[in-house]
Amino acid sequence: MSKIQVAILGATGMIGQRFIQMLEDHPYFEIEGMYASERSEGKKLADVLKVRDHVYKDETMDTKIQVMDVKKIAQNCRIAFSGIPSDLAGPTETELAEAGVGVFTNAGSHRMDKNVPILIPEVNPEHMYAIKDQSYYSNGGFIITNANCSSTGIAAPLAAIDKSFGLKQVFVSTYQALSGAGYPGVPSLDAVGNVVPFISHEEEKMETELGKMLGSYTDGDFRYAPFKVIANCARVPVVDGHLESLVLDMDKQPSLEEVEACLVNFRGEPQKLGLPSAPEQPIIVRKEDNRPQPVFDAMAGRPARARGMAVTVGRLRQGNGYYKAFVMSHNTLRGGAGGSVLNAELAKAKNII
Amino acid sequence: MSKIQVAILGATGMIGQRFIQMLEDHPYFEIEGMYASERSEGKKLADVLKVRDHVYKDETMDTKIQVMDVKKIAQNCRIAFSGIPSDLAGPTETELAEAGVGVFTNAGSHRMDKNVPILIPEVNPEHMYAIKDQSYYSNGGFIITNANCSSTGIAAPLAAIDKSFGLKQVFVSTYQALSGAGYPGVPSLDAVGNVVPFISHEEEKMETELGKMLGSYTDGDFRYAPFKVIANCARVPVVDGHLESLVLDMDKQPSLEEVEACLVNFRGEPQKLGLPSAPEQPIIVRKEDNRPQPVFDAMAGRPARARGMAVTVGRLRQGNGYYKAFVMSHNTLRGGAGGSVLNAELAKAKNII
Amino acid sequence: MSKIQVAILGATGMIGQRFIQMLEDHPYFEIEGMYASERSEGKKLADVLKVRDHVYKDETMDTKIQVMDVKKIAQNCRIAFSGIPSDLAGPTETELAEAGVGVFTNAGSHRMDKNVPILIPEVNPEHMYAIKDQSYYSNGGFIITNANCSSTGIAAPLAAIDKSFGLKQVFVSTYQALSGAGYPGVPSLDAVGNVVPFISHEEEKMETELGKMLGSYTDGDFRYAPFKVIANCARVPVVDGHLESLVLDMDKQPSLEEVEACLVNFRGEPQKLGLPSAPEQPIIVRKEDNRPQPVFDAMAGRPARARGMAVTVGRLRQGNGYYKAFVMSHNTLRGGAGGSVLNAELAKAKNII
Amino acid sequence: MSKIQVAILGATGMIGQRFIQMLEDHPYFEIEGMYASERSEGKKLADVLKVRDHVYKDETMDTKIQVMDVKKIAQNCRIAFSGIPSDLAGPTETELAEAGVGVFTNAGSHRMDKNVPILIPEVNPEHMYAIKDQSYYSNGGFIITNANCSSTGIAAPLAAIDKSFGLKQVFVSTYQALSGAGYPGVPSLDAVGNVVPFISHEEEKMETELGKMLGSYTDGDFRYAPFKVIANCARVPVVDGHLESLVLDMDKQPSLEEVEACLVNFRGEPQKLGLPSAPEQPIIVRKEDNRPQPVFDAMAGRPARARGMAVTVGRLRQGNGYYKAFVMSHNTLRGGAGGSVLNAELAKAKNII
Repeated sequence: MSKIQVAILGATGMIGQRFIQMLEDHPYFEIEGMYASERSEGKKLADVLKVRDHVYKDETMDTKIQVMDVKKIAQNCRIAFSGIPSDLAGPTETELAEAGVGVFTNAGSHRMDKNVPILIPEVNPEHMYAIKDQSYYSNGGFIITNANCSSTGIAAPLAAIDKSFGLKQVFVSTYQALSGAGYPGVPSLDAVGNVVPFISHEEEKMETELGKMLGSYTDGDFRYAPFKVIANCARVPVVDGHLESLVLDMDKQPSLEEVEACLVNFRGEPQKLGLPSAPEQPIIVRKEDNRPQPVFDAMAGRPARARGMAVTVGRLRQGNGYYKAFVMSHNTLRGGAGGSVLNAELAKAKNII
Repeated sequence: MSKIQVAILGATGMIGQRFIQMLEDHPYFEIEGMYASERSEGKKLADVLKVRDHVYKDETMDTKIQVMDVKKIAQNCRIAFSGIPSDLAGPTETELAEAGVGVFTNAGSHRMDKNVPILIPEVNPEHMYAIKDQSYYSNGGFIITNANCSSTGIAAPLAAIDKSFGLKQVFVSTYQALSGAGYPGVPSLDAVGNVVPFISHEEEKMETELGKMLGSYTDGDFRYAPFKVIANCARVPVVDGHLESLVLDMDKQPSLEEVEACLVNFRGEPQKLGLPSAPEQPIIVRKEDNRPQPVFDAMAGRPARARGMAVTVGRLRQGNGYYKAFVMSHNTLRGGAGGSVLNAELAKAKNII
Repeated sequence: MSKIQVAILGATGMIGQRFIQMLEDHPYFEIEGMYASERSEGKKLADVLKVRDHVYKDETMDTKIQVMDVKKIAQNCRIAFSGIPSDLAGPTETELAEAGVGVFTNAGSHRMDKNVPILIPEVNPEHMYAIKDQSYYSNGGFIITNANCSSTGIAAPLAAIDKSFGLKQVFVSTYQALSGAGYPGVPSLDAVGNVVPFISHEEEKMETELGKMLGSYTDGDFRYAPFKVIANCARVPVVDGHLESLVLDMDKQPSLEEVEACLVNFRGEPQKLGLPSAPEQPIIVRKEDNRPQPVFDAMAGRPARARGMAVTVGRLRQGNGYYKAFVMSHNTLRGGAGGSVLNAELAKAKNII
Repeated sequence: MSKIQVAILGATGMIGQRFIQMLEDHPYFEIEGMYASERSEGKKLADVLKVRDHVYKDETMDTKIQVMDVKKIAQNCRIAFSGIPSDLAGPTETELAEAGVGVFTNAGSHRMDKNVPILIPEVNPEHMYAIKDQSYYSNGGFIITNANCSSTGIAAPLAAIDKSFGLKQVFVSTYQALSGAGYPGVPSLDAVGNVVPFISHEEEKMETELGKMLGSYTDGDFRYAPFKVIANCARVPVVDGHLESLVLDMDKQPSLEEVEACLVNFRGEPQKLGLPSAPEQPIIVRKEDNRPQPVFDAMAGRPARARGMAVTVGRLRQGNGYYKAFVMSHNTLRGGAGGSVLNAELAKAKNII
């Protein structure tokens, strides 16, 4: 069976390079081209290397960056993975969808659009079918987004708990990594030995996206899940991996053992379908005093292809009527490129592409 | 008027050195001696320098560290400031109080003792008189503690808000500085590019100390304030200054302007008395998008003697029925040595010493 | 005596803000205006705060940034301090000098010009008079530069040693702070947990500027000192303070005690004249095993106005026929704004302005 | 062919854990046991995890640490890899060698012993045979050391250059990673935003070990290579990977192209023998402006088993009669555990074990 040709958009950025990393030797997909703005035209991937734990093959490193060309992409590729910065992504992605390309995007531009799903295959696989109501769909095109990185990190644990025990309120504070701001992103003088308690629009995204994702799609509309999210977001001097503190208000009052079992045993559609980038166990629970930590847990996930795709929950505690935990996820893998790759794998398994 | 002779205990540590810094040229107090364990005997302060922004006078830097000697201290000093590590402080502080010395301590050993106040002069000055019920008091000795650094940082804002609008619940997540763990403290391999979501006993302290401080002392007993505190504590790679995210559940629903006014206009006993280390404005409210930050706001406070003694509130927001903010305070000044120095200044002003 | 009115150019940058810091309450100078590019027009200094250890007065913080205006500056100011980025500074500084303004600049644009001195008052005060050969001088204008920050840091120790023992070769490797690259400067993803062994043109500057500074100005030309400088430059994740490792090849073979005495006893023109920003002891020698360090020694210098103006030498060693040391200096004070302020103080004391 | 049973000593430390990492699924060796001091007895490897980029198999993570037991190790193991701290390693290693165990050690205790080689298979493979003059050898025991991490990093480039062009003098300044100090090692308050220009005995080691390694072993004695090494050593806030600046004084004056070719084409005994942990190309030369950097180049080396075993040279320059470069190597792989593993592979290939 021949592989599906894919374009990578925004190939010089943090997310673009993670797309490349996750798509090398992929069983379903083959990189047709790496695209970016004119500034990067003709540069080799090696020249614009940003991801620290790069594991690229020699060939890829010498691949040259091309200028974005909707017509060419539409001719050669069934789908495109978009790591374009959110402020630029909207129109290009629409153009591609209109030209019949299936767009899997990390950008926020279309997340709140009427028929555009924010898809996490473990959480809301049925939302994928909202694309059938997109105007582009008749032409073969569509737009599927992944969630904001901070929302993604806690989406699976919240979905598992909501289903078993009923979520009423979620209080979350984030300790977000620098790679989330892209490159050049945060100036070092703001980062070294410092914390910046502000990330533009991040709290708003967390307070709305999670409700959309954990809600349902009925009669052409997304109905939001009814629980409240109250978010405080901050940037810390960590390279990769978002840590988030959670306080949960639930309908039921399960024991900590029951909460732990609910998380550890959680499996979703990607696990049932055996998708290539799906972690065998999507939620890992650690029992040590002092975990999860970015440097040890951001890359959690097995097998090798699913490194950085599991989320890790630790320090489960209970008190004052609430449940507390810290959650760790990789912001540019599970919360970025990896999320969209898994979405495309689901689409392939369900014969959407 | 001659100055009161004071001993500094644990003079080689982070808190001990902050005591020295705050007591140089102090109008009420004069350092009689710097004391520590035998390991440091005879070393000069310059040899054990740990505080980065040191502003010591030349004389002090050459002062030699002496071994702790209760008898000698009791003979020469009216009071002692203790920066002894909490696991060692208890018995020594008791011995000193029994010998007639007034102990102002940063250690946690006695904080939960029946008649020992956790004193913040802006918050609960009347708690000071609990010492009259201590057995040592007849002899002139007593123990007054300052609060845990994370509790201190938010105590004044919470007290102001509780008084005006009634506090029901406080959800707090901390971004705590490395200096809070002392020296050598956190290994660099755990700190660089990492966050550790665990600080031993810190959450328990926050969830109990604030209730004790904001409660009342009646009939020989502390009655706790009834609001709930739900805490998540983490260590970030910052040198000085604890940042804390707050979500507040209040009885009333004031406007953000009212909340801001309540904080900005807050003044306490130290401001009324004009105590030397009291910041003119104990709670600063910043309106920028991205403040407070450790590197800019940890040292807030005027005049010069009160640097690091003000707390800074920023990013006041409202939504979902809650109020949100970030709060910044200096963990080894306001939340450590400075807290005890201000306590001693109150005691002096009230003729307790 | 009324103070000299001065303009600060590039007031929103790291160097510009250090100029402001050093000129507050200055006995000779008064800030007439803060100037920058149009992007910053009308912003308050508080809005663009970059220097972490800011000690600005309230008034200054509210001062508004104006757009650069040569005519206006020439009318109102006798001199201008320039913190303009080097790639933009050249033409503006020339225009100002032509308009009769004395320009003291941190930019590199004019450093290698025929009659423009690279001035360090302790090292080559007589070079100041080269300005008499500048075409602008008849009109009252001139350009005096300070050296590159890395060159400045070691200039005084090298001058002292060259005079006493004769320098043949200087091998230097730098550990340079992030603030040297300005703001936004180095991206945090390049800085956290990393070292970048390249700073554009830095090695070339070190290998030429030191020879010019330690040489002589005769017959309208600078004659370079004959010793060789061999430099390796790297950026480390430090906020302020350049550390440099030195290996020196000398004509004589003094004892380490003689080298130390030569450095400790070194005094220059600023010390003799008692210039306001001159450190009493311009070269401090530390005897501890592990000093100088950026966090403890970058701010060396007394009295208060001269903080960050002394350089610190440590780990003096000898072997294999060479002398070794580490040298520390504050790159944006002694090696930046402070250098130019001291230059202006010398000009004032010598009645050039 | 059955694998050789090996013991890992100091298994809980940074080097010990790197030994475990490099010996998993090793074609020659099988881990018989992990040994450490009594403090760690019975702990699982997972409990003492220190290496950030751990790639351990599940089984290994659950393996329990045993207390060091010379008798038991001698009975079960042909060789032992020692990551014991240098101050404790000496006597234990001697005991093991006396008991007939071949000891491959990262500790410095025996490096300067008369018949003990400091072995780098690419550099001085013939030194291995010095062990035949060790008293233990008749009994099957011996001690082979790897070099200090900073010496190792530059040994292969220096050997290549010395052979082709003749080395007269080497001026080296180091930018050394925190992992070199082990765990807990450097306190975070000394590391964050700081550089410490002192590492105990490091400069002395560099100035002697390189001469021993690049010299010859004749008539039972090591004759040192005649070039001089002049070293300045400093610790920077980097997790893994030592960067070193080099200035080389050579007999000949080759072009930069010739120097580069000499490095790129360098191959040693491990490459000829195809040893499992040997990097195909032991010296990589990078042409970018700003490389090598710890975060991109510390893990250089192919194939997968040889990651972290290549050294990277960059910024080759020439001037003033000298050659300049920056060199990067992984201090706990090539400069630590990996060095000893490669030594053992050489011993196996040469039928010494």
